[in-house]
Amino acid sequence: MKTAIYRKEHFNAAHRLFNPSWSDEKNSATFGKCNNPSFHGHNYELIVKLVGEVDPETGYVFDTKVLSDIIKKHILARYDHKNLNLDCEEFKTTNPTAENIAKQIYNTLRSLIDSTLDLKVILYETERNFVEYPA
Amino acid sequence: MKTAIYRKEHFNAAHRLFNPSWSDEKNSATFGKCNNPSFHGHNYELIVKLVGEVDPETGYVFDTKVLSDIIKKHILARYDHKNLNLDCEEFKTTNPTAENIAKQIYNTLRSLIDSTLDLKVILYETERNFVEYPA
Amino acid sequence: MKTAIYRKEHFNAAHRLFNPSWSDEKNSATFGKCNNPSFHGHNYELIVKLVGEVDPETGYVFDTKVLSDIIKKHILARYDHKNLNLDCEEFKTTNPTAENIAKQIYNTLRSLIDSTLDLKVILYETERNFVEYPA
Amino acid sequence: MKTAIYRKEHFNAAHRLFNPSWSDEKNSATFGKCNNPSFHGHNYELIVKLVGEVDPETGYVFDTKVLSDIIKKHILARYDHKNLNLDCEEFKTTNPTAENIAKQIYNTLRSLIDSTLDLKVILYETERNFVEYPA
Amino acid sequence: MKTAIYRKEHFNAAHRLFNPSWSDEKNSATFGKCNNPSFHGHNYELIVKLVGEVDPETGYVFDTKVLSDIIKKHILARYDHKNLNLDCEEFKTTNPTAENIAKQIYNTLRSLIDSTLDLKVILYETERNFVEYPA
Amino acid sequence: MKTAIYRKEHFNAAHRLFNPSWSDEKNSATFGKCNNPSFHGHNYELIVKLVGEVDPETGYVFDTKVLSDIIKKHILARYDHKNLNLDCEEFKTTNPTAENIAKQIYNTLRSLIDSTLDLKVILYETERNFVEYPA
Repeated sequence: MKTAIYRKEHFNAAHRLFNPSWSDEKNSATFGKCNNPSFHGHNYELIVKLVGEVDPETGYVFDTKVLSDIIKKHILARYDHKNLNLDCEEFKTTNPTAENIAKQIYNTLRSLIDSTLDLKVILYETERNFVEYPA
Repeated sequence: MKTAIYRKEHFNAAHRLFNPSWSDEKNSATFGKCNNPSFHGHNYELIVKLVGEVDPETGYVFDTKVLSDIIKKHILARYDHKNLNLDCEEFKTTNPTAENIAKQIYNTLRSLIDSTLDLKVILYETERNFVEYPA
Repeated sequence: MKTAIYRKEHFNAAHRLFNPSWSDEKNSATFGKCNNPSFHGHNYELIVKLVGEVDPETGYVFDTKVLSDIIKKHILARYDHKNLNLDCEEFKTTNPTAENIAKQIYNTLRSLIDSTLDLKVILYETERNFVEYPA
Repeated sequence: MKTAIYRKEHFNAAHRLFNPSWSDEKNSATFGKCNNPSFHGHNYELIVKLVGEVDPETGYVFDTKVLSDIIKKHILARYDHKNLNLDCEEFKTTNPTAENIAKQIYNTLRSLIDSTLDLKVILYETERNFVEYPA
Repeated sequence: MKTAIYRKEHFNAAHRLFNPSWSDEKNSATFGKCNNPSFHGHNYELIVKLVGEVDPETGYVFDTKVLSDIIKKHILARYDHKNLNLDCEEFKTTNPTAENIAKQIYNTLRSLIDSTLDLKVILYETERNFVEYPA
Repeated sequence: MKTAIYRKEHFNAAHRLFNPSWSDEKNSATFGKCNNPSFHGHNYELIVKLVGEVDPETGYVFDTKVLSDIIKKHILARYDHKNLNLDCEEFKTTNPTAENIAKQIYNTLRSLIDSTLDLKVILYETERNFVEYPA
């Protein structure tokens, strides 16, 4: 049977939700307060899950210190203290919902983590709203 | 691959655990302090999980504001600041254990949420005791 | 300078808020959902704070294991899995608001803890509502 | 002896730290990542503390439901899902640090809460950085 | 559909990570601060998950009080306030990583819990590092 | 009126409680499980509070990034992943209770922080046991 390891990190970012192909009215009706053109922001809590076999020599599935360093270098450096809409290429045409941010983080990490390990991303936008990709 | 979204809400309720077809002795031996005929209570934390495809127009699996409104209207209005045994028809004949409350919430929400979305209910009775339905 | 120690415990109880000298209408208008005659309930989180000198022989202001035992014997045994209004003499004539429960706990503990130690009680009724006595 | 009551609320906002009378270099050197001109954001947790006598008729220092409504109307409506620098007059000339936001919230609430009650504001910018006013 | 129940417990223990068949240099390079020969320690949070059918007579998958007693007797008595490397036979030859501790707890509980119930162990070493077995 | 700022950090350490001038029997009777000669350990959560005037130019009482760096350099480097009894001079003759660790941290930081700022140290040994110095 395999084992899962989880590593939690966090970043603080500004964003707004909107669809550039829609009218302002439709954007406002759909996204409400989250559509504020001046942006709002969140303390995002990010949990990365890896599933695999335990290495009998180390007792690790994957060294969480190394995982933390990968997340810091490739995810936090990109999103922490940023405006997701203005500062991040990937959200200039994609709406930075929690769902889309989680998928983007997954895609970034998937290419960096050995494919023998299953990968899942859990992202808390607030304590009450969070997402998981893949489900 | 699909994405999961989660929404957390809470309600405060009184309850007692007992089986009306059993003797007082058996009820007390089985349910201990939870069998107190005067009731006790909890701050229930409720997490609702939906799994589906991300809508490319909104970037949402499901609008968490709409999900919150559904939970408030159909679950919190029914259970918040209530006595589950005395005030709620469904627990007059069913023991209001966390397992049974979670299943009841699932059944109520299942009929209100589009069937293309998978649904799961997680219910914390205390920080140390919680349940998930379906597992 | 003195040092403070804190010990956290919890209990689950049912209660309702009402003033027996008022009309049902006034009780309902004042206490809203909390006035439900069938009761509701909470997971109360209790924090007890003692302030004093550190004993140079033990390095303790007060042994938190002993403090925990005192709280379990004199507070939790009295309130855990109880209906505060029905099961507890002290709340038959006093409204079991968080303020009044905290004061009652303070009075009980004050007589049990050496008077050279300052005592404070912090009581969480929910994660969002809590009280402190004395302030 | 008096009793304290606490009420916790939250809001999500964007901000950036900068001093308009300083050069870009000095702003960047002083505020680091928090100086990002595109803004970043936080889930602010706000705790409001009131200290006073318990009303013997209600058992309340102050009705937390009323306090919550005051905070929602006068604080959350003003800051939730806003850009503090762009959308809020008071932070056009004052740097929206946690210290200054807490003081602003205090000043707003002080005029709305009876002066017989002592008032304190605790504001969490992140789980690791928080402030209290007055200390 | 089946239901899951979860019970959370905790224990405090010392440990160090090392592989006795490796050189000191390799151990230090691999395990870093966690290799300190004097040991360090953690507040471990343990969550045990059982999945099964709800008993129609009790409304329980499994009595969480009984589950708590099993965990206290067979896991906490063995690990709480212990040095995992020095005091526990099973970690004299196995590195006490979170992965290996979780698997050991699983193996101990698996023989004590009816095989009709699925079992999973979740172990938090810190708030930011946790594991799950089986995944 | 002054403002308080708080910064939270954490470290993981092993320790045991004992008084070298006492017999083994008295140590065991006094400190119970915490007296285990093989040590046990904790995830310590450390909160440092500074009280002072807000600098009108920065809007800060004190830069929390600078405070974090001071804590990392002078406290975490000394205690994180250490055995407090074996690795730290100051606890070779002083019992490493939470009270004594907090006082030691206070003394270290007091000499590093400008004396115009009031300083307080809050130390969580577990979620349920914590101390504050000075009270």
